[in-house]
Amino acid sequence: MSKIRVIIAGPRGKMGKAAVKMVHLNEKFELASVLDHKYDGQMLNEIDGFDKYTDIPIFTNIEECLQKSNADVLVDLTTPEFGFLHTKTTLQYGVRPVVGTTGFTLTQLDEIKQLAEEKEIGCIIAPNFAIGAVLMMKFSQMAARYFNDIEIIELHHNQKLDAPSGTAVKTAEMISEVRKKKEQGHPNEKETISGARGANIDGMHIHSVRLPGLIAHQQVMFGSEGESLTIRHDSYNRDSFMSGVKLSIETVMNASTLIYGLENIIE
Amino acid sequence: MSKIRVIIAGPRGKMGKAAVKMVHLNEKFELASVLDHKYDGQMLNEIDGFDKYTDIPIFTNIEECLQKSNADVLVDLTTPEFGFLHTKTTLQYGVRPVVGTTGFTLTQLDEIKQLAEEKEIGCIIAPNFAIGAVLMMKFSQMAARYFNDIEIIELHHNQKLDAPSGTAVKTAEMISEVRKKKEQGHPNEKETISGARGANIDGMHIHSVRLPGLIAHQQVMFGSEGESLTIRHDSYNRDSFMSGVKLSIETVMNASTLIYGLENIIE
Amino acid sequence: MSKIRVIIAGPRGKMGKAAVKMVHLNEKFELASVLDHKYDGQMLNEIDGFDKYTDIPIFTNIEECLQKSNADVLVDLTTPEFGFLHTKTTLQYGVRPVVGTTGFTLTQLDEIKQLAEEKEIGCIIAPNFAIGAVLMMKFSQMAARYFNDIEIIELHHNQKLDAPSGTAVKTAEMISEVRKKKEQGHPNEKETISGARGANIDGMHIHSVRLPGLIAHQQVMFGSEGESLTIRHDSYNRDSFMSGVKLSIETVMNASTLIYGLENIIE
Amino acid sequence: MSKIRVIIAGPRGKMGKAAVKMVHLNEKFELASVLDHKYDGQMLNEIDGFDKYTDIPIFTNIEECLQKSNADVLVDLTTPEFGFLHTKTTLQYGVRPVVGTTGFTLTQLDEIKQLAEEKEIGCIIAPNFAIGAVLMMKFSQMAARYFNDIEIIELHHNQKLDAPSGTAVKTAEMISEVRKKKEQGHPNEKETISGARGANIDGMHIHSVRLPGLIAHQQVMFGSEGESLTIRHDSYNRDSFMSGVKLSIETVMNASTLIYGLENIIE
Repeated sequence: MSKIRVIIAGPRGKMGKAAVKMVHLNEKFELASVLDHKYDGQMLNEIDGFDKYTDIPIFTNIEECLQKSNADVLVDLTTPEFGFLHTKTTLQYGVRPVVGTTGFTLTQLDEIKQLAEEKEIGCIIAPNFAIGAVLMMKFSQMAARYFNDIEIIELHHNQKLDAPSGTAVKTAEMISEVRKKKEQGHPNEKETISGARGANIDGMHIHSVRLPGLIAHQQVMFGSEGESLTIRHDSYNRDSFMSGVKLSIETVMNASTLIYGLENIIE
Repeated sequence: MSKIRVIIAGPRGKMGKAAVKMVHLNEKFELASVLDHKYDGQMLNEIDGFDKYTDIPIFTNIEECLQKSNADVLVDLTTPEFGFLHTKTTLQYGVRPVVGTTGFTLTQLDEIKQLAEEKEIGCIIAPNFAIGAVLMMKFSQMAARYFNDIEIIELHHNQKLDAPSGTAVKTAEMISEVRKKKEQGHPNEKETISGARGANIDGMHIHSVRLPGLIAHQQVMFGSEGESLTIRHDSYNRDSFMSGVKLSIETVMNASTLIYGLENIIE
Repeated sequence: MSKIRVIIAGPRGKMGKAAVKMVHLNEKFELASVLDHKYDGQMLNEIDGFDKYTDIPIFTNIEECLQKSNADVLVDLTTPEFGFLHTKTTLQYGVRPVVGTTGFTLTQLDEIKQLAEEKEIGCIIAPNFAIGAVLMMKFSQMAARYFNDIEIIELHHNQKLDAPSGTAVKTAEMISEVRKKKEQGHPNEKETISGARGANIDGMHIHSVRLPGLIAHQQVMFGSEGESLTIRHDSYNRDSFMSGVKLSIETVMNASTLIYGLENIIE
Repeated sequence: MSKIRVIIAGPRGKMGKAAVKMVHLNEKFELASVLDHKYDGQMLNEIDGFDKYTDIPIFTNIEECLQKSNADVLVDLTTPEFGFLHTKTTLQYGVRPVVGTTGFTLTQLDEIKQLAEEKEIGCIIAPNFAIGAVLMMKFSQMAARYFNDIEIIELHHNQKLDAPSGTAVKTAEMISEVRKKKEQGHPNEKETISGARGANIDGMHIHSVRLPGLIAHQQVMFGSEGESLTIRHDSYNRDSFMSGVKLSIETVMNASTLIYGLENIIE
């Protein structure tokens, strides 16, 4: 089987570096080129920290990049602004995009969907590439059909500014799609200190722990008479995203429309 | 909607007592009668501890019980020996069995399956009625498609004789059906004290913790670069089985064959 | 060595029943009598559920009980009101009280302390007899000297009315005695849904989870660059209190003043 | 108060780099010089990755280093072989050593102890600088006085070769000093798959989990009727050692003998 040829857009960011390494090491993939906003015309191994990746051209213009790379897939790890333009152009050239972003509007997603279907090729956009996190959310939604009482504890380092985390809110929203509405806890429960029972989304409670040392963790707890079920994800570093990028590259080759969210390619 | 009329076989065991109570309290169900090996002809409320269940006859003969109870479902919580006879007889009378047992042989299951299909009615046989435990096993199997490295820690009170637990072995077997074979751990790893790395099933490792105070707990851990996913079930008492009995009674009404294991009625 | 003779006050409550059983089974102890508000003059084995405890007289009058029982220790498991009177009378008779209560006022404690010192005998009053819980609090206080960032998660069944739990507040107070004051979390952190960051005691955060199935659990988390330390206690049932009652009976024999809280007899 | 002047031996290793940074950032400390086996006579900021540390001389000869640095403390993060020589020489020069190693023999420790007492200055040798890990071990030993049933689960990445981990064995040994001997589990328990019950040290059981993604984690579980107590340490990276190095530098200034193990400077 011939290898899947991959372009990485944004190779010098944290995610980009990990993706270059993963594509380089995976025997089913071949790194075709990289798209950067600097270093046009140079080779990747001329850049500090990338010495081992030989014969990989750098482009700054996406059209030239797509024309000359003979690629199957473009993995975009830049910003939402550039990502949207890159995704459209990539589709127009018949190349399949894999995009990691939470930043696209519904209108943008719709435009991308139409373009993918017109071209009859796949496109995967994933707000979260950590397969473990995606499974945690998917399993939580499945369990919510059988457990009506659910609390989410998310734990992050104390440099995080917002609480609850985006993943916790997304999890609660996915659960709400299937869960029978219920205001949890005892009807007469009292907070003797305000905030003790956490944030409330549709009657579910969410608790945000912030401590130095922690990285990114979430556990979803389901309770019923005599038992509890807990689904927990621990993310230690960005390597956790690479299994999802790998799965997306493989899956996008056989898709012919837009797939939004890894939960839709996990069975 | 008319209520589902239920016979409980084995009403005085721990599970039986909980089932009588659950059926009595659930507004969709109606307790038709009980099947016991004692007290033939008496009423259930004459028995110590069952005072509040009025107008429920006790039978010791299953055929008479089925003939006179006008029931839809018979929930069998007796022993494998009686359970098998009860299940066959129940099907022959056109009543749907819900049976909690791990004790049937494949030949017995086959015979029950044929009978159910002949009669075109459902029959549910569940080795485990705790929905949380069943979900833990099901999710573990699903996650094993994406995570190849898996360890199981099961924790029970120190009165338990066998290690690993039946649930842990069952979980490992379900995982093995989908997991790519792999001998886990470092190829050169060494146990400086024998047993440290636990029991080995198909290259997965299982660890059995036994402590006074503990009840019945299991966690399945999945590891991949930069992340881990953990699915944990805590069982505190027998009430945990009742949600599964309830779901089975509802589901068996719309089934027309044998369903073995709650994992097959959970979506 | 002669056995320690023990009176149980309140033998028919949940704690009392467990204490009667524990004293009866422990070879260092001997059940001398019980103090109840009913059944004066009867023997304990005439009462339903206590058949196996022979030759144990029941008293309703504490003075008569103390005069006739030749006891070393009286374990009071009644109410704060009766408990206070019992404790004083017990000390006046030269018998050592072990009292499980959170309900005494500071004035009452002071009065008891003076009486114990006058009589030169020990008296132990414990708000919590679960040694595991007491160790959790003690260790948390010790760890707080080295970790300034602390969050408490307490988890209880959903029939509990107050949040946070008394044990969580007590833990936070014990920690505050030694912890350098600090408002935790990022100075600019924002709750996008109110309550996410939990209750705040002296800058520490406390989160109260309530789910059916759960019993009584608490974990105290300490975070520092690159590491976290977690101390967790799970209480499954009232048996957990008996190790503390046992330790208190042994310890009170060698004490000559009031000891308030098991943390002061644990080394 | 004048700053404590510190020499770092082994500044280019992982621990060394973290220590240089910690000493540089801490306002109570001052980096006096570094001891390396290369770069004699150069300044630290001439070395790649150390640009921001100005005016710090590099020495390769320890005697010259000690003579010219006017230091209070030498932190040795080299190897056991060099570490032993460094420690002795440092003491001979009246400078206080802080050494991170598990590699010294009892004879070597004895020699160091005598030298420290002769010179009447402190010396701290720590097999583990992570305060969280040290507290876990210390608390475990304390809890073992009250809980006789103990199991240890240690979890590490799958590149670790030995099982159980050194920390787990050390923890078990510390516990054994105070725990009443007991063969845990049911007397008739059977391993249906060998290894399920883990490694056995003095009747305690130890379980070693190995998974990609994990870093270094250990939980010690104590069980008793109705309750369990769990003490867990998670180590995410080498930053966790720096709080222990910092505490050691401060403490060694007021010591006048050898202190082996941080558990002895933690109250």
